[in-house]
This record gives sequence, C-alpha cells and structure tokens, in this order.
Amino acid sequence: MDADKAQTSFDLNHLRSIEVADLLCQVPQGEQLVLFKQLSPQAAVTVFEFLPFNIQKSLINALEPEMTASILSEMSQDDRTAFLEELPNAAVNELLKLLPLTERIAALKLLGYPENSVGRLMTTDYLAVKQNWTVQQVLNYIRKYGRDSETINVIYVVDDDGKLIDDLRIKEFLFAPLDQTVQDLTDHRFVSLSVNDDDEEAIKVFSREDRVALPVTDKEGVLIGIVTIDDILDLMAEEDTQDIQKIGGTQALEYPYMQTPFLSLMGKRASWLVILFLGELLTATTMGYFEDEISKAVVLALFLPLIISSGGNSGSQASTLIIRALVIGEVTLRDWWKIMKREILSGLFLGSLLGTIGFMRISVWSTFSNIYGPHWLLIAITIFFALIGVVLWGTISGAMLPLLLKKLGYDPATASAPLVATLVDVTGIIIYFITAAFFLEGTLL
Amino acid sequence: MDADKAQTSFDLNHLRSIEVADLLCQVPQGEQLVLFKQLSPQAAVTVFEFLPFNIQKSLINALEPEMTASILSEMSQDDRTAFLEELPNAAVNELLKLLPLTERIAALKLLGYPENSVGRLMTTDYLAVKQNWTVQQVLNYIRKYGRDSETINVIYVVDDDGKLIDDLRIKEFLFAPLDQTVQDLTDHRFVSLSVNDDDEEAIKVFSREDRVALPVTDKEGVLIGIVTIDDILDLMAEEDTQDIQKIGGTQALEYPYMQTPFLSLMGKRASWLVILFLGELLTATTMGYFEDEISKAVVLALFLPLIISSGGNSGSQASTLIIRALVIGEVTLRDWWKIMKREILSGLFLGSLLGTIGFMRISVWSTFSNIYGPHWLLIAITIFFALIGVVLWGTISGAMLPLLLKKLGYDPATASAPLVATLVDVTGIIIYFITAAFFLEGTLL
Repeated sequence: MDADKAQTSFDLNHLRSIEVADLLCQVPQGEQLVLFKQLSPQAAVTVFEFLPFNIQKSLINALEPEMTASILSEMSQDDRTAFLEELPNAAVNELLKLLPLTERIAALKLLGYPENSVGRLMTTDYLAVKQNWTVQQVLNYIRKYGRDSETINVIYVVDDDGKLIDDLRIKEFLFAPLDQTVQDLTDHRFVSLSVNDDDEEAIKVFSREDRVALPVTDKEGVLIGIVTIDDILDLMAEEDTQDIQKIGGTQALEYPYMQTPFLSLMGKRASWLVILFLGELLTATTMGYFEDEISKAVVLALFLPLIISSGGNSGSQASTLIIRALVIGEVTLRDWWKIMKREILSGLFLGSLLGTIGFMRISVWSTFSNIYGPHWLLIAITIFFALIGVVLWGTISGAMLPLLLKKLGYDPATASAPLVATLVDVTGIIIYFITAAFFLEGTLL
Repeated sequence: MDADKAQTSFDLNHLRSIEVADLLCQVPQGEQLVLFKQLSPQAAVTVFEFLPFNIQKSLINALEPEMTASILSEMSQDDRTAFLEELPNAAVNELLKLLPLTERIAALKLLGYPENSVGRLMTTDYLAVKQNWTVQQVLNYIRKYGRDSETINVIYVVDDDGKLIDDLRIKEFLFAPLDQTVQDLTDHRFVSLSVNDDDEEAIKVFSREDRVALPVTDKEGVLIGIVTIDDILDLMAEEDTQDIQKIGGTQALEYPYMQTPFLSLMGKRASWLVILFLGELLTATTMGYFEDEISKAVVLALFLPLIISSGGNSGSQASTLIIRALVIGEVTLRDWWKIMKREILSGLFLGSLLGTIGFMRISVWSTFSNIYGPHWLLIAITIFFALIGVVLWGTISGAMLPLLLKKLGYDPATASAPLVATLVDVTGIIIYFITAAFFLEGTLL
C-alpha cells in the first residue's frame, strides 16, 4: 500500500509540470486535491501556474492555509495577478492576508492597475543594474539574485532615480571583458511599454520587435516591471479568440466553449441574436410597404433571398478584412478614404460579376421555359442592377462600419458578419424594390 | 554637402533597426536604396530582416552582388528561409550561388522541408553541448560560439550520435558550480518539435509550454535545429488573420489588405462570392416550388428574410465558436456528440426565445391593426414554430460543418459565416413553408 503510494508520488514528480497540470484537468475533482498534495512544494507552484482558473480556484479552497500561502508567494507575479483578478474582492483580501508583507504589497499594486492594462501583465521580478558597475559585478549580481527573476535573458540599466536607461541582453555581458563597465555597453536605444497602456498595445510592440521581454515604465520613465513574451502569446490567442467570437455574432466568452456554463453561453449568444432579430423585424416592416408589388409580381419574391444574401456576403467579406487589418495595425482610421475608394471599386466589380451570373441564369432558364413569363428580360435587367446596387452597398457599409465603430470608441470587431448582413438586408430590400419599380413599372408593376 | 551626408548617415545608424525599417517603408522606392546603402554592414542585415518582402525583393534586385551575398550569409536562417521561399526558384538559385558553400547547403536544406512545416521556421544556429562537459567548459563554449547563435537562453544537450537528451536554460549553468558536469544538471525532461510537423502544431506546443525556444528533431530524435518564440508570435498572428478572413467568406490573403493588388483581392473575394451566389440561386429555385403559396398568402413572403436570417445568424455563432475551439485545441473531433447535444439544447432555447418575440410582435401589431388579416394567430404560430425549426437547424449545421470539414481533411475555418448562412437559407425556406403548410392549410393556403 505504502509502496504503491510512493510509486504514484514518484511518477508525478517525475513528469513535467505541464504534464501534471494536464493530468489534473482530466481526473475527477475529488482526485485533483489528492494528486496535487503529492507534489513537492516547488513543483506544486509551477503546476499551479499551468492550471486553468476553475481548478486553481477549487484547489485554493481546499488546501491548508500554509500551502496556499506558499503557492501564492512563490508563483510568478503575472500568473498570480491573472489568478487573483478573476476572484471576488472579498476572496482576494482573505488570500492576501496569508502573504508576507512585501509580497502582499506587490500583489496589491499589480491588481491596482486597470483591467486589460500592461500593468496587469507585469512582473516586478527582474534584474536592474547601474551604469557604473563592471561586467564582473553584473555577473555576480545575476548569480546571486537571478534565481527569482522571471527572466535573465535581458538585464535592465537604470540611473539613480530608477529611470530606465537601456536594456541589455545577457549575451552582451557574457561576451564583454569582465572589467568593462555597464556604461560601455549602453547605447540608450531601447523600447519600453507604459504601465497604463492597453494590453493590445503590448501585443503590437512585441510583434514588431523581436524581444523575449520588454520593460515597463511609469509616466516619469522609471522602470517598474517587465512583461515577458509567453504572456503575450497567451494574450494574443485570447484576443484573437474574442475577435473571432465577436465576428461570428457572439459576445466574447470568458471561458472555453465546453467549460462555459450553458446559461452563460446562452446569455452571450441570445443578447446579439435578439438585437439582430429586432433589427431584422424591420425587414418585415419594409416588405410590408412593398406588399402590393409582391402580390402583383410574385416572381420578385423568388429572388429576394438571393439579392439580400449577396449583399450580406459581400459585406461580411469587407467587414472582416477591415476588422483584422485594424487589429493588426495594417490600416488606421486615417486610411478611411483609401479604403472607401477600394471598396467602391470592389463593390462595382463584384456586383457586376454576380449581376451577370444572375442575368444569364434568368435568360437561360427563360429560353427553355416560361417560368419567368413574357417580361423575363426586364426581370433579368432588374436583377442585374439590383445586385450591383446591393453588393456595392454591402461592401461599402461592411468596410465603413468597423472604422465608424473604432472612431466612436467601440471595438471594431462588433461589426460582426451577422450584424452587417442584417443592416444590408433591410436596405437591400429597399434597393431591390426601387430598382424593380424603375424597370417594371407599367409592365409587371 | 559631405557634412550633410555624414549627418544623415550618422542619424540612420543611430536609430534602432526596426525604426530604420519603418522609415524605409515610408520613403519612395528610389530613396530606399540610397538610405539602405548608408547603413553599416551589420545594421544592413538586421534592418533587412525587419523589412516586408516586397521591399526586400526590390533591394536585393538593386544591390551589388557583394552586398547581397553579405546580407544573405549574415541574416538569421529562419528569416532567410522566409524571404527565399517567396521568390521564384530561378531567382533563389541565382542568389544561393552568391553564398559560401556551408551557408548555401544550410539554406537549401531548410528550403527542402515542406511548406508550412516546422522545418521552414527553423534555424540551425544553436548551441549544443555534451553530457561529460563541465559547467566551466560550457560557459567557455558559449563565450566562444554564442555570438552567432539565434538564442543563448537555452543550451541543448546531445549524445555522441547527436540525439537530443535535454534542454537547459542558461540560468542553470550560471547558478551551477563550475566543476559540475552537464550530466548533473540533466533531467531528461524536454519537449521537442518534429521537423515535418505542421507549423500549427508548433503554435500549440509554444502556447502550452512557457518556452522562448524549442528544439527540433528528426525521426531518429537527432537535434537538427531550433524554433524561437518571436517567429511563433508572427506565425500565430498570420494564421489567425487567415482564419478570420476565411470566416468572413474570403480566401486568405497573402499580403496585407492595402498591399494586395486589386485584381488579386477580387480573385480571393469573387471565388467564394460566386460559389455562395450559385448556392443561393437554389433559394430562387426552392421558392419557385412555393410560388403558389406565396401568391395565396403574400404575408408569408414578408417574414421570409426574418426567418432565414435568424437561422443564418445562429449558425454563424455556432460555426465560429466551434472553429475557434478546434484551432485552439479546446475541442477535438471526438467531442462531436457532446457539442451536438449542447447545440441541440442551444437551438431549442434560442429558437424559442426568438419565436416568442416574433409571436408577440405579430400579436401586438394585430391588436392595433388589421395588417395580418383575420388569421393573424395562425400566422403567429407559424412564425413561432418556423423560428424554432430554423434556428435549431442553424445551430446544428453551423456546429457540425466545421467538424465535418476537419474530419474530411479540410480547414474548419472554411465553414465561414456566409457559407453557413447560405446553407441555412435554402433549408430554412423549406422548413418555413412546410411549417406554414401545416398550420395554414385550409385557411390561408
């Protein structure tokens, strides 16, 4: 019995932390605690960092205060902030009481930065050196204090006021003569993030610069922390997931699809679905105005889904292209007129293409049957021009809506494919029936 | 004149490489070459690495062969592969002739791996050490050869056959006693990528592990290169951009929206738009079967866009949620039945919600007007059940289509919002009219 237990315990500590975390995700909740307690104190910390929030939370609730305290003090600050920010305030306060004073102050400070700011991604476990130190002093310093640092790949140079002067890769110290001073290596060229910047800004800077860590400064340029690239990778995946969900017409989910409770999933989906439905009710109202035309020429109704969906499709294309280009930083609001010109041309081109196919379809069918009656040519012409109009309107509104939303301070990804399709549906009906009235007045209408 | 030139030259070399690259992107093509030639040979290499492909290409065409040779031999291997793989084969061969033999072999080898494979992301500039070396020997080795290595943050341990045994962070060497051997530090726990793996696999592994670099091995487990996280960040942004473009119903673009030539942009958009249009033509055919019903009860046509768009919207939600969950690895094909159960419930819930709103809208309007005639209650009931049916069908087909595509070996993101909407439009019309026939037979129909 004891031998068995020792065996399991040995196996668990022999696995890599990420593998233990994966294992814990797969076993029933009751066993998670048993397994977790078998880990060495050091392994417990790294395994904990890899666990998803819901398991972290249930473990913390079940563990003895001493173990909780040890995990929370030892885990890296950015992961700790990410865990604590998901908890209710009262729970955070209880947990913080367990921490030693310095750690408690550090944790509180990081939680004090606005949500989705660079501050929340930060760790203060970095190495900073002064300009007058020698390379030998720096290397000694690294050996002494580097163990607790989030990364030793980059060493930061600060002045006596703590202001950031430079960031140097560890490479540069390893290759430099030991008696050189830091000043000799410093070139004052560095990139830093601002602590209050939006975290999307951090993604952009990391994507542009090939760095594994970037320093974070306050308004005075004082170095107050660093952000490491592994957190950026996670953040980027998360932001892109949210964008994709929004583009699909859902509110962004907080948890993975499968882990989102059913009612919460319904809330995120129903809210937009109802808004779109209310918007789409306008199509019924609009159609009401053209009820006479429809009863006179039922054939017009046949092509309605074709016409409005073509506008919706071309609008979805334009909006997703522009949303992504905005997020990546390929286009900015200032480019709106350039985009507009491109999309007008695109709309005319694509609309003419679809219009021609539609025209040909009606012509060919009418050659072999009498399905569209004696005025088939006029109907074909109506479809041709209606498609150009609707597709043009779709591309223009699809492209401009994300820019407008961004201009008004909203997330451009809110211009979801379904939203654009709904907008274009209502206006598309009007464009269609006006075109029809123009060409069919006196014959069918 | 000379002073001016010296001034400009000094300024340029004073900027960080990424800033020079940004500057080159903004000046007219003629000036790019002039500015680029002012860079020191070393700066030229790093600036070149940061430039977009089209500028890289025009510079290479204009530079003297010596400078081209120096840039291509000095630039990091992964960036070189990324540049060369975009060029036509003949041009690649011409350029490779300029390289020294060893670099030429290395470049050819990397280009030999399949497109979108881990091999194409790789660099062979890494540091590998043997188990019997002492920490002192390793540090000396790093000092001697580390300058050319892509990263010295991780050092790789290999056996006499070159097989990977472990990866150790530089930290571990810096903190270890100098007379310890590598063997003492080795724990044989490491993660590696396979050279022929898809590059999306690399993204998943990097996202799971918090590593700045991962080793790449061949089938025999021999270490043949490394992949660094900065390339993964770029790759991830690129893959997500392609997914978003596909979800919006466009073929993935190769270049940024603004840089894509107009005709190429039209090709990427027209192909799907035409396919969707041809699919949507089926709506006209389907509607044709119900022409009698429409002419008897024009009121049915009024609600048609509302009904089918609700199906399309709920389908877009489901498909984007599942596409992203598949890409992130949150769900796999084996979860299909769990997903199906969730989406059946979702469809019933969301459909009933929209159905109720639709029912109430018709009831309320009919209380104050005669717009929907004496049979308004039957119409309201028809709309209620048609919405449940169409929304249920939308969520199920939206959720299953990405899984089906993946199962068949296609990209799940092909299940774009417009594609799902089109599929649901055609079937939605059938569901709607069958529901109408059921409730309205003998009264309106």
